[in-house]
Amino acid sequence: MLTGGMRAAYMFAPGDVRVIDAPAPRIEEPTDALVRLVRTCVCGSDLHPYHSMAPNPDGTSMGHEYLGVVEEVGAEVVTVRPGDLVIVPFVFSCGVCDFCREGLQTSCRRAGLASRLGSAGAQAELLRAPLADGTLYPVPVDEHSGLLASLLTLSDVYGTGFHAALTGGAGPETTVAVIGDGAVGLLAVLSARRLGAERIILMGRHAARTDLGREFGATDVVATRADEGVEAVRELTGGDGCHVVLEAVGHLPALEQALGIVRAGGRIARVGVPQYREGPIGREQFARNVTITGGVAPVRHYIDRLLPDVLSGEVDPGRVFDVELSLDDAARGYELMDRREALKVMLRP
Amino acid sequence: MLTGGMRAAYMFAPGDVRVIDAPAPRIEEPTDALVRLVRTCVCGSDLHPYHSMAPNPDGTSMGHEYLGVVEEVGAEVVTVRPGDLVIVPFVFSCGVCDFCREGLQTSCRRAGLASRLGSAGAQAELLRAPLADGTLYPVPVDEHSGLLASLLTLSDVYGTGFHAALTGGAGPETTVAVIGDGAVGLLAVLSARRLGAERIILMGRHAARTDLGREFGATDVVATRADEGVEAVRELTGGDGCHVVLEAVGHLPALEQALGIVRAGGRIARVGVPQYREGPIGREQFARNVTITGGVAPVRHYIDRLLPDVLSGEVDPGRVFDVELSLDDAARGYELMDRREALKVMLRP
Repeated sequence: MLTGGMRAAYMFAPGDVRVIDAPAPRIEEPTDALVRLVRTCVCGSDLHPYHSMAPNPDGTSMGHEYLGVVEEVGAEVVTVRPGDLVIVPFVFSCGVCDFCREGLQTSCRRAGLASRLGSAGAQAELLRAPLADGTLYPVPVDEHSGLLASLLTLSDVYGTGFHAALTGGAGPETTVAVIGDGAVGLLAVLSARRLGAERIILMGRHAARTDLGREFGATDVVATRADEGVEAVRELTGGDGCHVVLEAVGHLPALEQALGIVRAGGRIARVGVPQYREGPIGREQFARNVTITGGVAPVRHYIDRLLPDVLSGEVDPGRVFDVELSLDDAARGYELMDRREALKVMLRP
Repeated sequence: MLTGGMRAAYMFAPGDVRVIDAPAPRIEEPTDALVRLVRTCVCGSDLHPYHSMAPNPDGTSMGHEYLGVVEEVGAEVVTVRPGDLVIVPFVFSCGVCDFCREGLQTSCRRAGLASRLGSAGAQAELLRAPLADGTLYPVPVDEHSGLLASLLTLSDVYGTGFHAALTGGAGPETTVAVIGDGAVGLLAVLSARRLGAERIILMGRHAARTDLGREFGATDVVATRADEGVEAVRELTGGDGCHVVLEAVGHLPALEQALGIVRAGGRIARVGVPQYREGPIGREQFARNVTITGGVAPVRHYIDRLLPDVLSGEVDPGRVFDVELSLDDAARGYELMDRREALKVMLRP
């Protein structure tokens, strides 16, 4: 176990990610656990600050997708023990408040997105996981398992894709479109398929990615976007558009595209973090009874449901990782993702 | 039966409504019916052009809420006969296309909101009802029944309030807020109550209206709005806001108010016609997993469900009409509604 410092990726300015020596976290509260990370990764949403953050000489610790082994637990922790391999959802949660019980752990009253519990980013050697009983999800495999990549997706991207598909209402007899061929978009395809959707149109421009999307269940690929993409999806759907649109990008043109391809009475589920404040939700959307739903995914809630098929090998969401690097090469991982030379980069601390 | 002309209310410019002699409609298609209107009314949404329409020397025929007696039917009409009292939903529909069968008659492929089938407004003596088999809903009462006011609400405002409550997910164990104390808002209260909601907060400033809202099922009334109103609703809900918010106004501040009082994971159902193109649907709404739903109500779909309790007298949605005038006094009806001296004006052609 590390005692003094640890290695961790920090971002200082757009394009400036460095792995530095940072203070190692330790147990602070009796409800904490200390987790030694075994796999972490770079998220598409990490690219937003990578493009536009305000420079910060102290740097910001990065990453929010964790898979690790419990090193030590506080006196009150009862559900995990040292040695357990655990999935750490990207938003920490207590597990007992009403929001957690309702399955909206992202709005947990004790932790949750609005708070800043958690002492370091995921792109690091160690994590202090607060409210360990609510936050950590132990899985019955060891740290050398071949399932690590797929398990890691349960900390964010698979659960996020599933949140889109579920809140969007993907199911049998729905035609689903997925906007975005990043990891979340591809796992939204997989999720829609597993919820029973038979017609899934994936909108993306990178053949290697959309090919994986086809393996995950996409029946059609539309490589154009904006008006041209809207036109293509409308053509594929007899002019009507799709019952369900899963928006996994977050930029305003993606939302506009979603509005252009959603069928009257249909549902748009957003899981790309909005990079806009205002959007078109006026009379046209109203006249067509379009619902806009989705949001930050309470992935903790979905692990129960998604884990069994990962453990059995029935699904392999970890295929979204196409590059694996050492944590020390985190900067290179950001570069590869930014240039779209990597779909998703896994980091080994 | 009228043959040459008929009396009809036309709007020529903001504030300028006149009842004029207009050409009487007649059967044009074998699927038409000619309906002699026995009751019609002024809608809150008629006030939007009353405030801001571009002047038009030819005038625009007004009104879209109809109750009438079938005078004549085209050769292909089979579900209604001369003499039947019929409810005419505010959007005409064929009844057989996929959208109609799905219950989204407002998007009917043959008529629907996007088309302009229908030769005159409702504030008139006669109506040519296209696609009569799909559009008209015969009811087993005569034109002197005491139920006319309540039946008339099924052509728009009761069905619209119900659409809000249903799409918003009002039900047992939900706390519901209704924004707007117009006829639709009050009938959204009634609808939420009938769907099982036990806590219903009505936001409105007119005591006579909110008193009726209490009779319809509101448990709390908040007479303030904007930040002050948001604060009051949050206080009533332990700081959390409401699971379901029914927005029955249509102005941007009402949507902002809805966003301010909706609980994380909650649903806003809009049924007030949006008087804006863009709205705040950025990161804050996303982080709280807020859904925005609702839209133009397919009221035809709801008549089956809502009619029995109207016929039995179990509910009396017609209480929203507090002023009854002759069609010839339509201009006066607009004035009263515009000044909020009338809640909703019924017109007798």
